[in-house]
Amino acid sequence: MREIRQAETADFEQIWPFFQEIVSAGETYTYPPDICKEDAQALWMTAPRKTFVVVEDGKILGSYYIKTNQSGGGSHICNCGYMVSASARGRGIASIMCEHSQMLARDLGYLAMQFNFVVSTNTEAVRLWQKMGFEIVGEIPRAFQHPRLGFVSALVMYKQLT
Amino acid sequence: MREIRQAETADFEQIWPFFQEIVSAGETYTYPPDICKEDAQALWMTAPRKTFVVVEDGKILGSYYIKTNQSGGGSHICNCGYMVSASARGRGIASIMCEHSQMLARDLGYLAMQFNFVVSTNTEAVRLWQKMGFEIVGEIPRAFQHPRLGFVSALVMYKQLT
Repeated sequence: MREIRQAETADFEQIWPFFQEIVSAGETYTYPPDICKEDAQALWMTAPRKTFVVVEDGKILGSYYIKTNQSGGGSHICNCGYMVSASARGRGIASIMCEHSQMLARDLGYLAMQFNFVVSTNTEAVRLWQKMGFEIVGEIPRAFQHPRLGFVSALVMYKQLT
Repeated sequence: MREIRQAETADFEQIWPFFQEIVSAGETYTYPPDICKEDAQALWMTAPRKTFVVVEDGKILGSYYIKTNQSGGGSHICNCGYMVSASARGRGIASIMCEHSQMLARDLGYLAMQFNFVVSTNTEAVRLWQKMGFEIVGEIPRAFQHPRLGFVSALVMYKQLT
């Protein structure tokens, strides 16, 4: 049985292995590739407004966070980050989390969702977000130093929720 | 005599009045308009990599910060924020600070500078940054709730430094 629920502190024990795998690859996220577990936990579990996990038979398949993207006059737009365990890829977990996060965002009163930094060579993600109604509203040249491809651009993606 | 030097803690006594004036107006920055002095000081003086002040005869005319915009694969791009005291406007202080920050950024090893959130109705700033070689690489729709104009877009601006 699969459920999406808010993450508890203990869940990070299962999140950390795929967080570390994704971040140490250095191809998609701008977290420091050598980030330690404690800093990762603070970034993923403490700093955001909420963090959720997708759980199947006690196993965490993926996790996402939601946070307010800017303060003050920009606080009606949220930002999310999603990670899927390698063993659960190709099963639509990212889509499920993105749908869930949009519903949650509406419930929390956000009017739009923004991804600040989608690495342009992460074409799977770009296509998925586009399929889910996000549009590319910006492209920052040479914004990301990819470990194999060198400097590549990063996209700003946006979806109005109302 | 005018100089630009790194800010000291005590300088915030002079920065706070114009910081507060600019932020409470809520027209250009996404800081909370009712931010307290301690939080403002942490954001402007402590969180950034460096903070500078423009001083003339002991009076602080403006201040800027520089910080790394993203970690990991995005850490070669810096971000800056600039504020000018109302009494010193129209004297090119923003230009002077922006030039200084670009030199500093190069010295610190950054390859580019990015402004993440230039409120599109802040036309004076947009024009100045364009004049200084920054290009608009993104426009986020309805990204900023302006106190008089309602929802207006925000621009992502970028300049390669090498």
